Amino acid sequence: MDIFEKLLKNKGPIGQHSDRAHGYFAFPKLEGPIGNRMKFRGKEKIIWSLNNYLGLANHPEVRETDARAAAEYGLAAPMGARMMSGNTDYHEQLEKELSAFVQKEDTCLLNYGYQGIMSSIDALCNRHDVIVYDAESHACIIDGVRLHAGHRYVFKHNDVEDLEKQLKRATEMVKTTGGGILVITEGVFGMAGDQGKLKEIIALKEKYQFRLLVDDAHGFGTMGKTGAGTGEHQGCQDGIDLYFSTFAKSMASIGAFVSGDKPVIDYLRYNIRSQIFAKSLPLPIVIGNLKRLELLRNHPELREKLWNNVRKLQEGLKKNGFDIGHTNSPVTPVYMKGSIPEATAMLVDLRETYHVFCSIVVYPVIPKGQIIYRLTPTAVHTDEDIEQTLHAFAEVKKKLDAQAYQLKEIPLVQ
Amino acid sequence: MDIFEKLLKNKGPIGQHSDRAHGYFAFPKLEGPIGNRMKFRGKEKIIWSLNNYLGLANHPEVRETDARAAAEYGLAAPMGARMMSGNTDYHEQLEKELSAFVQKEDTCLLNYGYQGIMSSIDALCNRHDVIVYDAESHACIIDGVRLHAGHRYVFKHNDVEDLEKQLKRATEMVKTTGGGILVITEGVFGMAGDQGKLKEIIALKEKYQFRLLVDDAHGFGTMGKTGAGTGEHQGCQDGIDLYFSTFAKSMASIGAFVSGDKPVIDYLRYNIRSQIFAKSLPLPIVIGNLKRLELLRNHPELREKLWNNVRKLQEGLKKNGFDIGHTNSPVTPVYMKGSIPEATAMLVDLRETYHVFCSIVVYPVIPKGQIIYRLTPTAVHTDEDIEQTLHAFAEVKKKLDAQAYQLKEIPLVQ
Repeated sequence: MDIFEKLLKNKGPIGQHSDRAHGYFAFPKLEGPIGNRMKFRGKEKIIWSLNNYLGLANHPEVRETDARAAAEYGLAAPMGARMMSGNTDYHEQLEKELSAFVQKEDTCLLNYGYQGIMSSIDALCNRHDVIVYDAESHACIIDGVRLHAGHRYVFKHNDVEDLEKQLKRATEMVKTTGGGILVITEGVFGMAGDQGKLKEIIALKEKYQFRLLVDDAHGFGTMGKTGAGTGEHQGCQDGIDLYFSTFAKSMASIGAFVSGDKPVIDYLRYNIRSQIFAKSLPLPIVIGNLKRLELLRNHPELREKLWNNVRKLQEGLKKNGFDIGHTNSPVTPVYMKGSIPEATAMLVDLRETYHVFCSIVVYPVIPKGQIIYRLTPTAVHTDEDIEQTLHAFAEVKKKLDAQAYQLKEIPLVQ
Repeated sequence: MDIFEKLLKNKGPIGQHSDRAHGYFAFPKLEGPIGNRMKFRGKEKIIWSLNNYLGLANHPEVRETDARAAAEYGLAAPMGARMMSGNTDYHEQLEKELSAFVQKEDTCLLNYGYQGIMSSIDALCNRHDVIVYDAESHACIIDGVRLHAGHRYVFKHNDVEDLEKQLKRATEMVKTTGGGILVITEGVFGMAGDQGKLKEIIALKEKYQFRLLVDDAHGFGTMGKTGAGTGEHQGCQDGIDLYFSTFAKSMASIGAFVSGDKPVIDYLRYNIRSQIFAKSLPLPIVIGNLKRLELLRNHPELREKLWNNVRKLQEGLKKNGFDIGHTNSPVTPVYMKGSIPEATAMLVDLRETYHVFCSIVVYPVIPKGQIIYRLTPTAVHTDEDIEQTLHAFAEVKKKLDAQAYQLKEIPLVQ
């Protein structure tokens, strides 16, 4: 059979809606400088879709540094993989500063988060090792686990009891294979906003021998007294053997890093396929990340502002009767059940009538049947943004309860 | 067993040399604007290690565009995955221009080449399908194939007879599984510089049903009358079902793209994990790539200059008795046999005495026992660069033949 013909029979869980969704629900264009308000289809909206937690994307010092670094070096330099010809003093400087900030001995910079963590997992484990990972891990972790030729056991999301069950199985297994155990979870889960139970997981080290890799994409910069992440927040940073974060959230950039003990990071540096066989992170991005890290470190008031907004938004939504689940981070999900057409009709109303722009998350990012609106408060949102949004959500809730959104199919937006 | 302890017992094929290699053979720092001459450890060297084929990295119009776009948009925008909040007119414009340039209906921009092609392969194939791929495919293709849960057959590098043997096996297999066949090869192989036998492979479509994905990382911009790549050069672009290239070589940037028929590209757009779950390519990089593509299209004299330099360098090396294999592209390998210490001693002599900087490639990038110096001529190299380099190679060849480099271990460079 022709492989293309087969593909096109089933356009995929989101692709099947593309005729009606494209440009509105999927691949929308937000215009203007990144901030609390941006333009969508020519009209100003309050934007809740960007992980610009600390508001660094459009911070004047960030903009000045990005412009200066690009003017000085261009966006091409350095060329080649870091190991071959793509290393610079700035790359090493950023590694040093990140290590100090997250309280680890050494750091390996990664050119992109997705391929960075995939190849980290791949480099750490051979077929004798066993990976034990949270069921709701991000796609990049799942793909890293998919590269693993050995055994892998999944534990129920954030269920420490089930983790222990899987650790028992893994411990039995490595007795046969002679390998080791790597546990993988997240600091803050990006969909539901609940923190990984890092402290409880680390406590299991007393009974089982394993190493812990934590993806703290949403916790880095937002959690902990200094912003060093969820490990700091839970008082267990030491127990995280490998601390990973992307720069794509609070750092408002691209790239990523993984930190840990020097010999292990050195090992990764020389063995991580997506890095030794792909181009180094461009110099202006590295220099821009040094500036972002400096602001993140030295301006705790940005984090305070973020958390003030988080509290106002989350408490307001709860008061209005919305189910925001068990978030204990800035990630603010609004759970709905019902058909995709109903949920999208409400989203359109929010967007067109009330000028509130948030994203909708459906299967396969989350399980079938669930619908999540996801709101990401940031340090640059204002009280007015929050009040206007809470009012809008209260209004659409009334219509929802009155079954005003019960359409049969996804609305076609002209 | 502790997974870290196990790792550190064997630091890996390159890592085992890191004590002596770090900063010199591995992770060297090239300083100054990207060009034919740059500084290494404070001294000017002739640089042959960068895939800056057309010299676009430091082209004044590129530098001006990079600076202007970063000043206008910053390096943070857009935020989020393309599907969620990271789409812009510029991303779509670049897709349109790339489609026209490589003569395909549609194009999907990718945020990084490595994860882009991995996830493309992953999105195209399910466990019923069979992948048939060249044995010397780049690491990113191998990792894509590793994600595949179905059967895969490897064919001997560029051996069309063996490919046919594997296609026969694959054809039998899909009769059972009901799947399709995807053949993967490269336009220009980055280590040896030989072109994939695209025309011969495509001819096999008369006898077997398969689709062809070509990674033309080194051919895009360098091969073909208009620079549209190896398919254009061989007169068989139509037979390439999916044309992939990174921007990391002749485009002197980051990111990548895959082009083909519109329905298939649409399918990819909505199903490619590393794109729907990771941040979009930053706007200044997209705008910078539009400028690079414009220059690549409108300045054939850059490609002519490149090829003049390729011919001078390759003919000169052959005259001096060096084995440059079967390259028929700008990639210029110089093959050596012998110990790693011997090869590195010669490399140090080239670098320190003659100020010629090239990379050395050893296992695991290439098979054990082989050593390749790899030279990449570009449009910005001068006649003087080439003459000086040929002279240097002639000199070290004399020493090599006189066994002057027969050390017992990798030289320690102070």
